[in-house]
Amino acid sequence: MSMQVDTVLDRLRADEAGMLQRLKDFLAFESISTDPAYAPRVRACAQWLLEDLRKMGFNGALHETAGHPMVVASHDGPPGYDGPRVLFYGHYDVQPVDPIELWESPPFAAVVVDGPRGKRIVARGAVDDKGQVASFVEACRAWHATHGTLPCAVTMFIEGEEESGSANLDPFIKANKDLLKADVCVVSDTGMWDVDTPAITTMLRGLVYVDITVRGPSRDLHSGLYGGAVPNPINVLASIVAQLHDGDRRVQIPGFYDDVHELPARVAAMWKDLPWDDGEFLGEIGLAKGFGESGRSTLERTWSRPTCDCNGIVGGYTGAGAKTVIASQASVKLSCRLVAGQDPKKILAGIERFFRERLPAGCTMELHEHGCNPAIMVRDDSPYMKAAETGLRRAYGKAPYLIGSGGSIPAVGTIQRELGIDALLVGFGLDDDRVHSPNEKFEVKCFMNGAMSHAAMLAEFGALRR
Amino acid sequence: MSMQVDTVLDRLRADEAGMLQRLKDFLAFESISTDPAYAPRVRACAQWLLEDLRKMGFNGALHETAGHPMVVASHDGPPGYDGPRVLFYGHYDVQPVDPIELWESPPFAAVVVDGPRGKRIVARGAVDDKGQVASFVEACRAWHATHGTLPCAVTMFIEGEEESGSANLDPFIKANKDLLKADVCVVSDTGMWDVDTPAITTMLRGLVYVDITVRGPSRDLHSGLYGGAVPNPINVLASIVAQLHDGDRRVQIPGFYDDVHELPARVAAMWKDLPWDDGEFLGEIGLAKGFGESGRSTLERTWSRPTCDCNGIVGGYTGAGAKTVIASQASVKLSCRLVAGQDPKKILAGIERFFRERLPAGCTMELHEHGCNPAIMVRDDSPYMKAAETGLRRAYGKAPYLIGSGGSIPAVGTIQRELGIDALLVGFGLDDDRVHSPNEKFEVKCFMNGAMSHAAMLAEFGALRR
Repeated sequence: MSMQVDTVLDRLRADEAGMLQRLKDFLAFESISTDPAYAPRVRACAQWLLEDLRKMGFNGALHETAGHPMVVASHDGPPGYDGPRVLFYGHYDVQPVDPIELWESPPFAAVVVDGPRGKRIVARGAVDDKGQVASFVEACRAWHATHGTLPCAVTMFIEGEEESGSANLDPFIKANKDLLKADVCVVSDTGMWDVDTPAITTMLRGLVYVDITVRGPSRDLHSGLYGGAVPNPINVLASIVAQLHDGDRRVQIPGFYDDVHELPARVAAMWKDLPWDDGEFLGEIGLAKGFGESGRSTLERTWSRPTCDCNGIVGGYTGAGAKTVIASQASVKLSCRLVAGQDPKKILAGIERFFRERLPAGCTMELHEHGCNPAIMVRDDSPYMKAAETGLRRAYGKAPYLIGSGGSIPAVGTIQRELGIDALLVGFGLDDDRVHSPNEKFEVKCFMNGAMSHAAMLAEFGALRR
Repeated sequence: MSMQVDTVLDRLRADEAGMLQRLKDFLAFESISTDPAYAPRVRACAQWLLEDLRKMGFNGALHETAGHPMVVASHDGPPGYDGPRVLFYGHYDVQPVDPIELWESPPFAAVVVDGPRGKRIVARGAVDDKGQVASFVEACRAWHATHGTLPCAVTMFIEGEEESGSANLDPFIKANKDLLKADVCVVSDTGMWDVDTPAITTMLRGLVYVDITVRGPSRDLHSGLYGGAVPNPINVLASIVAQLHDGDRRVQIPGFYDDVHELPARVAAMWKDLPWDDGEFLGEIGLAKGFGESGRSTLERTWSRPTCDCNGIVGGYTGAGAKTVIASQASVKLSCRLVAGQDPKKILAGIERFFRERLPAGCTMELHEHGCNPAIMVRDDSPYMKAAETGLRRAYGKAPYLIGSGGSIPAVGTIQRELGIDALLVGFGLDDDRVHSPNEKFEVKCFMNGAMSHAAMLAEFGALRR
């Protein structure tokens, strides 16, 4: 097996140019799932990915949903193989690109440029998640090219709605348990410790995302003729949003912390030993010091503590110059990152109650949910975890750190719950990849090492007895 | 004189169709002064107005400014006339039209439709202020058509930046005192008491308008990876805006009320006697009860008490669906309506200090001023005031009420101060004209009576000894 892996890794090293070109083709699709205007491009992207998988021996199809299609493709591994099946989950959709004016190159025309860590590829989706999906796809391609098959059975499950709440994911998984049957799930949508140190994420925060509109007067009003005598929806919204936190930046939604537990001593100790540098993490985004829940470290604030942030707000006149108007309505996009133990439905209800109880007479509100999923924790002592660690050590020459992550991957919780298997979160992103921001990038080094790590992990999984 | 006036009023009554057609032509110009994209249309509107004035014996020109041009045109009255000169001030620019989707007809294609009070003309600027300027222009046209001249000397002074802060008005007036020399100023940019009852406004609130941008992280961030550990500019902005008012809706900017005085007993008594109906005023905009400074009537809240309202707010993702981002900045457009005694510069400084003192570490802010003018009070015992009352009584058969108004007309203060003359605020708008809102309208009855009132007032002014 060891010999087999080396030839695959050599093949990957030799094929960097081809790998980058194929990633550029993948990145050229404007697969923005949250904006209906891009639906045709989302579908075209899924079709392109499916065709590519077929080239390396996968059988699959696009599975329709109420929203964007799922790509599901299967490979049975070597002839007569009866070892574990790996379910690889990722997503081919991407975030919107605004503010477009801050991009240094067109978001859907990927460019490879030089950076402090060598070459990097810049485009929307470069790392979240097309580049990471490609690292796994290229690992399979290299196995197929060098040995005509894969070292284990693999099912690819790539969705197109992760960036817009994965509304159709749960029902699809529940309705397709046989199609998705596997022994372990691998997800590449998280980060490394640093460019030279791999990591496996064992904690992910959940998410509740809502859109709230507050309405007051039945029409926009002249602020001179009416100002001072009517409720101003923008001021009303601001005053309620302001009440969401106290002076210690603790969330004031009743019961918000009821099910939040302190870190297990073992994990807390592990995190304390991590070579973490607040100055570097915050300096990279122009901040001298952190700002969050009192008495918590930055790692706790982003990995193990819940949050409540506004993601967008709009109301009244937002054009150039001045308009003396009192708007009839104002809206806010609000989301809470949740930690293990918190019930998303309970938090969602708490948010709605919090706003309704504070609405002054004369105002009404409307709330729309855009995602509601719990935080997850992954077992860190399974044979699959050990196999992944071995594979990563092979690619990097050092053991991965077991870390937490502030982000959410809705699929992972459902996969654990519905398919009853472990999910290994092995990602190759870096904190400064500008995920969801202009000029999103993926270090070519991370892309290549990611592909080699997946190639090595596949061999380790294939070597496991059932 | 009386005979002369009657023929003019008859002429106006007979020319309604022509008057409405000319108003439609005036309303067809998209003269949105606050948006640089419309500058050519603003200028075209000024040129059209100047040409029209020349048709009725005015000599004038467009006077360039750093912004949009001023229309100034002069008529010396009858041969050998040596009575008072009337300076008529108005503006030919209009507010933006958003939200455009709420308009029932194109904002710049005026239509005359039936309403509860008879015909009304609907378009942006119908009443604010093109329709009111037209009511005066048509009065002059009717005098010119029936008697070949005007009953007194008139200088038309129509600016194009009233809706965007009148940045160039003060310097222009200061630099052109001879050009604008007159004995009394008449302004038609205010409202009537009701459709059958004229009013002269003797109090106008001032205005301070600012645009504030709060900046935090140096770029947009993924709310999962950074949420909880960094200052969120939207939440920061909301928390500061929320602190602008206390539970009694009193503005919390230090010193805000220092120079605010209670109403003179005489005025308070006059207002108490006004047949005012809170239910009607608020019901028309979908509200059951008022909302404002505790212990104040709606009239006080809108005429004699200062305010602090958000006119617009924007930050982060405001498109369809969800985007899990923490924005790097958020902005608010904020304005205070001021009353007699308050110093705009002092309030402006207070607003900036209020925000700066509450900015958390890691955040910066930028403030831009879009207008800063004091409230004004007009003498209600001058011979010109009496002449105006007589003219209005002639057109309406009843005396006008002397009222206050919550709106601001920057020009009036400067005209009083720099030209040393009274300003008579005689307007013909109604509270439900949807000023600054979609489907802005002007009652045809108000337009016609306005023109007849101006025609009669011109005669009264001409009859005054110097």
